Amino acid sequence: MFAALADPGRRSMVEQLSRGPATVTALAAPLSMSLPAVMQHLRVLEGSGLVRSEKAGRVRTCRVNPAALRTAEEWIAGRRTELAAGLDRLGAHLAREQHEETS
Amino acid sequence: MFAALADPGRRSMVEQLSRGPATVTALAAPLSMSLPAVMQHLRVLEGSGLVRSEKAGRVRTCRVNPAALRTAEEWIAGRRTELAAGLDRLGAHLAREQHEETS
Repeated sequence: MFAALADPGRRSMVEQLSRGPATVTALAAPLSMSLPAVMQHLRVLEGSGLVRSEKAGRVRTCRVNPAALRTAEEWIAGRRTELAAGLDRLGAHLAREQHEETS
Repeated sequence: MFAALADPGRRSMVEQLSRGPATVTALAAPLSMSLPAVMQHLRVLEGSGLVRSEKAGRVRTCRVNPAALRTAEEWIAGRRTELAAGLDRLGAHLAREQHEETS
């Protein structure tokens, strides 16, 4: 999933799709990318689970999968929580040390 | 930054460092990775800004850079917010349509 988000073009596609579902043609329009390039990025995004698409007749509509976005966000949030807890422990330790020195 | 997080070994390193700073040797210990491999991943993580390290004598200590983690989280959170706003707009639209049909 992070690999899928590592490419700036794919991030642009996710940014666009976050504002609403889009067809592949609409998705390609604001990007300076060929349709085949967009299709290839779409395959990577679909493979990661971040984007889903369905075809109705000749039109393929793409949308972001909120659950996948949530998973990525939760991993990062988990790291931040641990990091904050560690800093709190360090702060408490330093406060204790200072208290012992002054007492 | 997402590219740095795309590798499971590097994610393990960030997970470990989120629990507290560690030397390169301590970082390598729980991973089934050679020291050179860990050093190489460390370079990628440092290049992305996610991890910082400093050398004191012969010992290099690594720590997570909370600001970089926050940046990655904010990008994803931004997408989720837009996505939710879009779903709200769709809901309001459907409610309006239904109201027009029944009135």
